[in-house]
Amino acid sequence: MTDNNKKPSHTIAELGEFGLIDYLTKNLEHFQPNTVTGVGDDAAVIDIGDKYLLLTKDLLLEGIHFDMTYQPLRHLGYKAVAVNLSDICAMNGTPTHILVGIGISNRYTLEAVEEIYEGMRLACEKYKVDFVGGDTTSSVQGLVLSITAIGTVKKDKVTYRGPALPNELICVSGDLGGAYAGLLLLEREKAEFKVNPDMQPDLQGNEYVLERFLKPEPRQDIIRILQDIHVKPTAMIDISDGLASEIKHICKHSDLGCALYEEKIPIDQQTYDIARSFNIDPTTCALNGGEDYELLFTIRQNDYEKVKNIPEISIIGHMTEKSAGINLITKSGSLVEIKAQGWDHLKK
Amino acid sequence: MTDNNKKPSHTIAELGEFGLIDYLTKNLEHFQPNTVTGVGDDAAVIDIGDKYLLLTKDLLLEGIHFDMTYQPLRHLGYKAVAVNLSDICAMNGTPTHILVGIGISNRYTLEAVEEIYEGMRLACEKYKVDFVGGDTTSSVQGLVLSITAIGTVKKDKVTYRGPALPNELICVSGDLGGAYAGLLLLEREKAEFKVNPDMQPDLQGNEYVLERFLKPEPRQDIIRILQDIHVKPTAMIDISDGLASEIKHICKHSDLGCALYEEKIPIDQQTYDIARSFNIDPTTCALNGGEDYELLFTIRQNDYEKVKNIPEISIIGHMTEKSAGINLITKSGSLVEIKAQGWDHLKK
Repeated sequence: MTDNNKKPSHTIAELGEFGLIDYLTKNLEHFQPNTVTGVGDDAAVIDIGDKYLLLTKDLLLEGIHFDMTYQPLRHLGYKAVAVNLSDICAMNGTPTHILVGIGISNRYTLEAVEEIYEGMRLACEKYKVDFVGGDTTSSVQGLVLSITAIGTVKKDKVTYRGPALPNELICVSGDLGGAYAGLLLLEREKAEFKVNPDMQPDLQGNEYVLERFLKPEPRQDIIRILQDIHVKPTAMIDISDGLASEIKHICKHSDLGCALYEEKIPIDQQTYDIARSFNIDPTTCALNGGEDYELLFTIRQNDYEKVKNIPEISIIGHMTEKSAGINLITKSGSLVEIKAQGWDHLKK
Repeated sequence: MTDNNKKPSHTIAELGEFGLIDYLTKNLEHFQPNTVTGVGDDAAVIDIGDKYLLLTKDLLLEGIHFDMTYQPLRHLGYKAVAVNLSDICAMNGTPTHILVGIGISNRYTLEAVEEIYEGMRLACEKYKVDFVGGDTTSSVQGLVLSITAIGTVKKDKVTYRGPALPNELICVSGDLGGAYAGLLLLEREKAEFKVNPDMQPDLQGNEYVLERFLKPEPRQDIIRILQDIHVKPTAMIDISDGLASEIKHICKHSDLGCALYEEKIPIDQQTYDIARSFNIDPTTCALNGGEDYELLFTIRQNDYEKVKNIPEISIIGHMTEKSAGINLITKSGSLVEIKAQGWDHLKK
């Protein structure tokens, strides 16, 4: 009886996820005097007196964000929590509480749901986060997971996606591309399993990249290290959609360009070898693979000495004037514009 | 490759929504000293210094919580926000911020998504709530809406689902059963539309109940009235699943029974007439219909004089000892045990 089929002037696929969010939220008005930042960063920021409250949420939908063929349910629960805690870390904050919404189709047994909860419980225990509520319902479709994480940060410690300044150093935690390498392996096994259902999956020796994909960890340890060495990033974001997409967010929020050095991008040997075995450039995995949940951040040049010997942090480039563009300096020394081809589920 | 098909000892359908939540969350540990209440009330309660922070979330899934045949998208957006704000009101709090997760299948145009956002924006504007973030993704299934609402309440004003005390008075705001009457009409029109797609829907003169179903309002006005007349409810819950289900929650949290008087249950004339035209007992609509989003609460007997002349509040019964049971005193004077047959999507 309602007409939901009018002709669009733009399409969702044209706009993509970030364009759609910008488009839909451009006219939002704020009424609460304690709203510091709303839509547009890893988490919303609300002034609660002596601290800032951080709020973030992520939807995880079966068939889009996870594939039941190879996603153990316990890992899925763990990952659903971890990726939300990662958003709180990206604000330089400490996660404290989560709410969980879960929609379950009748394909799922009680034991299956218990496995998901057990994974969530393990993530909460590890990061000392309290599971304080949510919603449980049936679903006529697949599994729906919706996690809200809250956390806090001291007011003078909060970090946004920008603005960074020209010549500030670009850093990344851990290594990149591993989650995508893990996904490549799992997709290959899934394809072979379809042809030969009696096969045993051949995943041995690849535990590192599989874990990177199936059970990522929020880098709360990096937040603590930065605190200990008295470095406050000037801009920060977590890598959910790939280095290329995330550095573009920092550049956009800073109205600047950047230069990343391909040879400086940290890639684990296992990631490297698997990418090569699939005839994929390992740098492409790092730039566009996504789901690594590492932290990408900028620091003042003065902080270089404090950061340079931290094993878990790599300095991979620097911010430039906007006119210089967003570039990768390849191993052969040529300059290539970085294009984000990250995990934008809405683009076609 | 994972085995999600083990034999269950219980089934989800046996447990139902509330049983499942109890079962899954029974071993949750809290690590944060400022967690006051976690799972088990309308919202989680967190101590943020001079106030309590309230946190709640609801998933709304196409095919379970709404039917696109008759749910205008703008109303859907409005309702998704309203039902979450209602949970904050049920804690005697004031909603301040929301986060929105939305999963969209490719059936939806940009204009359709804009309509949903416009409804959410209108609800935010009306209740002076800030839309501060969320997540937008594609969905291979239908529309998924996940709203998180936060709010605050003065520490001495927070209300829980209990404990109420014996002989305290049971009150309800507004009138009940209207949303269900609206749903009955919409379902009838849908059935007729299937037979004759050229028909014009015949809904005129029934605007009140249709609005009750399609565009409910959180009763923030009642929270203000109670504040103004200096009445703090001893227990409170919002009516999402029907009076029967909600009063059972209050009884459970109070370890008490209750007596509700059928003749005191407020039912609008339009609701009454429509129920009758469907050969349904109007009291059944009020008890089991759900989605009215009125507030159900208990007050001290001493507060009777303050409440008795408030037109928007009805006193419908009183709390009793547990041994007396959870009962309805019918119009004919007989005593009937109240059984909840509310909207438990998980029970079969």
